[in-house]
Amino acid sequence: MLYELTLPQFSKTLKNLLNLLDKGVKHAEAKKFEFDVLLQARLAPDQFNLIRQIQIACDTAKLCGARLANKEAPTHPDTEKTYSEIKSRIESVIQYLNSFTSQDFNGAEDRHISQPRWEGKYLTGKEFVIHHAVPNFYFHVTTAYSILRHNGVDIGKKDYLGELPYKK
Amino acid sequence: MLYELTLPQFSKTLKNLLNLLDKGVKHAEAKKFEFDVLLQARLAPDQFNLIRQIQIACDTAKLCGARLANKEAPTHPDTEKTYSEIKSRIESVIQYLNSFTSQDFNGAEDRHISQPRWEGKYLTGKEFVIHHAVPNFYFHVTTAYSILRHNGVDIGKKDYLGELPYKK
Repeated sequence: MLYELTLPQFSKTLKNLLNLLDKGVKHAEAKKFEFDVLLQARLAPDQFNLIRQIQIACDTAKLCGARLANKEAPTHPDTEKTYSEIKSRIESVIQYLNSFTSQDFNGAEDRHISQPRWEGKYLTGKEFVIHHAVPNFYFHVTTAYSILRHNGVDIGKKDYLGELPYKK
Repeated sequence: MLYELTLPQFSKTLKNLLNLLDKGVKHAEAKKFEFDVLLQARLAPDQFNLIRQIQIACDTAKLCGARLANKEAPTHPDTEKTYSEIKSRIESVIQYLNSFTSQDFNGAEDRHISQPRWEGKYLTGKEFVIHHAVPNFYFHVTTAYSILRHNGVDIGKKDYLGELPYKK
């Protein structure tokens, strides 16, 4: 269950984020400005800009998988400056997320999860997902969305949620 | 597990939202403006304002509980205009969420969940949580956060995430 809750849904949401950015690119073309300018935009002067929001969303998803499956995550040096670079980053993380299976999460619920800034403290895998990874991931994707929306890109919540697996 | 993933964490996050709003009130006092003005703020002219973001976050949490437990949710007529009214709304939803137990979610994973606008289609309870309720809830709380942040309120991601249940 922890697997279903996280990686496939994070992967889907990062694909939705690619669509949001693509709409931003089309908006920039129509308005005749460089989309990469928007990658520097932020909602407050002391807040991270759009490119950093995307990097953190990517890292949150990637590290959630790696930590719960007790694997080493691939590194990304946070040097992206352009749309094509950040697009590649997202695509590489989607590919990484899709490389996991639910079996990789065996024992994940009770695994002790920590990170350097927690100074030796830990959360169980389940707590980590519920209290940290999931709210953190959506926080950064939604903030990226809000930066685009605030700058006039024609996007709506449906683009953020993506397709729902409706049944009849 | 669906219960743990949703209602207690939604309840915690709504308490964090009360703290965010409280910081907004203190900011308004320091800057000598009416906080209720901020409740009308939005990040784009065709986006919902702060008060509506809060109402939808509340409804998402409330209806997630009611639908998964197959109960009738209390109604809220969306008439709030002031801080004290929206605060009461949040508090009443927190109280409602806290009235559930994990037993109320027996069978919730496979329950067929629908809503009028889905025109007879449904999601299973598990799909509903993963694809709809959770991303939707964090979307509106984060957007409320962003509206406050954009308007100069001194808040950070820690206020949004709240306390983590660290262990040593």
